[in-house]
Amino acid sequence: MAKINENYLKLKAGYLFPEIGRRVSAFADKNPDKKIIKMGIGDVTTPLSPSIVKAFHEGVNEMSELATFRGYGPEQGYAFLREAIAKNEYQDRGVNISSNDIFVSDGSKCDSGNILEIFGADNKIAMQDPVYPVYVDTAVMAGRTGEAAGNGYYSGLVYMPCLEKNGFIPQIPNEKADIIFLCYPNNPTGTTATKEELAKWVAYAKENKAIILFDAAYEAFIREDNVPRSIYEIPGAEDVAIEFRSFSKKAGFTGTRCAYTVIPENLKAYAENGEAVNIRNLWSRRHSTKFNGVSYPVQKAAAAIYTEEGKKEIKEVIDFYMENARIMRESLSEMGFTVYGGINAPYVWVKAKNGEKSWDLFDYFLNEANVVGTPGSGFGPSGEGYFRFSAFAQREDVLEAMKRIKNTGI
Amino acid sequence: MAKINENYLKLKAGYLFPEIGRRVSAFADKNPDKKIIKMGIGDVTTPLSPSIVKAFHEGVNEMSELATFRGYGPEQGYAFLREAIAKNEYQDRGVNISSNDIFVSDGSKCDSGNILEIFGADNKIAMQDPVYPVYVDTAVMAGRTGEAAGNGYYSGLVYMPCLEKNGFIPQIPNEKADIIFLCYPNNPTGTTATKEELAKWVAYAKENKAIILFDAAYEAFIREDNVPRSIYEIPGAEDVAIEFRSFSKKAGFTGTRCAYTVIPENLKAYAENGEAVNIRNLWSRRHSTKFNGVSYPVQKAAAAIYTEEGKKEIKEVIDFYMENARIMRESLSEMGFTVYGGINAPYVWVKAKNGEKSWDLFDYFLNEANVVGTPGSGFGPSGEGYFRFSAFAQREDVLEAMKRIKNTGI
Repeated sequence: MAKINENYLKLKAGYLFPEIGRRVSAFADKNPDKKIIKMGIGDVTTPLSPSIVKAFHEGVNEMSELATFRGYGPEQGYAFLREAIAKNEYQDRGVNISSNDIFVSDGSKCDSGNILEIFGADNKIAMQDPVYPVYVDTAVMAGRTGEAAGNGYYSGLVYMPCLEKNGFIPQIPNEKADIIFLCYPNNPTGTTATKEELAKWVAYAKENKAIILFDAAYEAFIREDNVPRSIYEIPGAEDVAIEFRSFSKKAGFTGTRCAYTVIPENLKAYAENGEAVNIRNLWSRRHSTKFNGVSYPVQKAAAAIYTEEGKKEIKEVIDFYMENARIMRESLSEMGFTVYGGINAPYVWVKAKNGEKSWDLFDYFLNEANVVGTPGSGFGPSGEGYFRFSAFAQREDVLEAMKRIKNTGI
Repeated sequence: MAKINENYLKLKAGYLFPEIGRRVSAFADKNPDKKIIKMGIGDVTTPLSPSIVKAFHEGVNEMSELATFRGYGPEQGYAFLREAIAKNEYQDRGVNISSNDIFVSDGSKCDSGNILEIFGADNKIAMQDPVYPVYVDTAVMAGRTGEAAGNGYYSGLVYMPCLEKNGFIPQIPNEKADIIFLCYPNNPTGTTATKEELAKWVAYAKENKAIILFDAAYEAFIREDNVPRSIYEIPGAEDVAIEFRSFSKKAGFTGTRCAYTVIPENLKAYAENGEAVNIRNLWSRRHSTKFNGVSYPVQKAAAAIYTEEGKKEIKEVIDFYMENARIMRESLSEMGFTVYGGINAPYVWVKAKNGEKSWDLFDYFLNEANVVGTPGSGFGPSGEGYFRFSAFAQREDVLEAMKRIKNTGI
C-alpha cells in the first residue's frame, strides 16, 4: 500500500498568497467597476532589458543551427555564466568566490527548499520571524518540524523574532541551532543588517559548527555603501555560509527563471562518525542527480546582465523601482505611518497606527482604496500588526495607490 | 553542529557517465589523432525545429514589451501548454486526461527524483534492473534504501531483473511493493511492453494499493501501432499510475528543458490512519512550494510542437533518429550480434557474443573502433554482458561507427 509523506498533513491549508487571491477575487466579483492596484506579491513588472533580450534571441538562434546547437549542458551551469557571476558579483568586490563555488539553478525558491536534502533530519533549524514562507513550509514537508501550535509556530524550529525593538535583527538564540536561515535585505521587512551584526552570526556559526543559509535575493536593491551585499563580505563566512542569489528581482527574471547558489570550497558539515564532509561536493551530487541544468538561452540571457550595457540597463530598472519605494515611504510617513524598509530593498514594511491586525488592514486597503498589499502576519506571528507593500509596480499605480490610501483618511 | 544527510554516503562513487568520460578522456589524451564517435549518452544532436524556434523567439519578444511581459507564471505551467498536451497526447488518442492533471516542469529527471518526496519513507520501492540510474540514486539519497551490497544491489529495494529470457519485461514480484518504477519504451534496453503486459502491472497495483511511476520519456519513438504510448491506455491505470513525459528526446529539448508529469485526479495513497489522500493535491502543494514554473518562452516553444507544422517537423527528426536505429540494428545483426530495441526506441541493446563483460566491450569498441557506447552493467547488474548504443547521432557518424566496428573483425 502506497503511503503518503505524513509531514504534508502538518501544513496549514491557508497559504498566504492563495488566501490573498481569494479575497481579491471575491472583492472584484462584487465590484467589477473598481480598478484594483496590486502591490502584494513581489513580482517584477518591467520587461527584460534590451541587452538581455538580444542575448536571449542569440541563444535561441544557436539552438536552431547544427553547428551551435546545445544538448545537455553542465548541470552546474555553463562556465561562461558561472565565471561572469564569480567575477562581477564577488571578485570585483574583493570577495574570494570562484566559479566552481557557483551552482546555477532555475530559482532561489527551489534552492532554498532543496538545500535541506543534503543535511540530516536531526539538525535544529532556526528561522527569522516574520519570514519568507517557503523556508518554513519546505522544512515542514521535509519532516524537520513537529505540528503547528496555536500561535502559528511549528514545534521543533527555533523562531527568531524580528521586531521594531531589535531593529528587525534577531537576537542570537539561547538554544543551539545547526542551520540558520537569514535573509538580508530582508523579505518581508525590507530592512538590512550591518557587517557588525552579520559578523555576530558568523561567530555564532563558527562556535557551534552551524551553517548559515543566507538569502541575498534582494542585494541588487542596496543603495547605501556600508550595507553588505553578501555574507562573504564578513571574514570567515566562507567557512560557515551558503548564499542564495537570484536574477528574478535583479533583472526581471521571475518569468524567465535563473538563479544561483554559492557554496564555498571549505564549507563542511559533519557525519555521524564526526568526520567533516565537504558540502560543495554533496550539493554537486544532489544538483547533478536531481537537476539537469538551466535552459541554455536563459543562461545566455542571464550572462548579458554582466556586459557594460546590461549593467546600465538593469541599474535603470532598479532605480525606477527604488524611486517607487521612496514615494511609498514618504507618502505613508506623511500619512502618519511608521515605515521601515524601502531604502535598500523593494519592500516597505508599514506599522499599523492603532494596533490594527494585519488582515484588518488588508481588508481596509482593499475595500476603501482598492489597493492590495500583503498582511504582515502572513509571514509569521511577529509580522502581526504590519503590512508589506511591494515597490514592483508601474509609477502611475504607485502614485494612484498612495493617493487613494490618503483619501480614505486613515 | 550541522549534520549531513548520511544517506549520501551510501552512494557509490563511480557513477556511470563520469566513469565513461574518464576513460574517453584518457584515450583521447593518448590518441590525439583519432576521431572518437560518441554514441553513449542519450543526448539529441539535431537542432530545434523551425516552428519551435519561431515560437521561442516570439516568447522572448513578449518578455521585452510592457504589454506582453510575464512575471511569475502558474507553477503548474501555463494553461495553453497544459491544454495542448492534454488534447494532443491524451484526449485525441482516446485517453481521458485533463489539463488539470498535467504538471509542467523543467525535466523528467527532476520529477522522477522529486516525486518520492510526497510519499512516506516506509514505502517499498521496486525497480527494473537494468534501470535509469537516477531512480536508484535518488531513492538512496532520500533514505529509501540500506547500503549497497557486493552485487550492486541496495538493500531495501525490490529489484526486478529484465532479461533476455523474460523479454525484458519483469515478473510481478513475489514480495509486496508499494511504489513501482516502470519505463517503456525502456531505457536502456530499447524494448517495449504490450498492453496485456502492462495490464498485469495495473492489476497488481490495484490489488496492493500500490502506485506505478511510469516513465514514458521515449513514447515519441514508438513506430508500431499496437504498442501503448501511455500507461493510461490500460483501463484503470488512472487510479494507480503517475506518468512522466519529456520534450527532451521528443523535440530536442535536452538543452532547452521542458517536461511534464501526469497525475490523474483520482489517484490516492494512504495516510497512517488509513485515510485515502489525493496525490494530485499533494504534488500540487510540493510543486508550487518548491518550484516556480518553467521559463515562459520555453513553454511557448514547447507548445509549438502541437501545431500542424510543428508535428510534421518533429516527426521528421524522429524518423531520422529511427533510421539511425535501423542502420545500427541491421549492421550489428549482420556482424552476428543479438540485438534488442531500436524499433520503438532510440536505443539499441547489444548482447556480447562470447560472454564478454560490458566494460570489456566498452574498452574494445573505444580502443579498436574509437566508438563510445554505454556498458550495460552501468545500468544495473542485469545489464552485464550487454552494451547500449544511442541513435542520437549524425548519420555519417552512425555509418562510420558501424563500418569501424565491422572492420575490427569482432
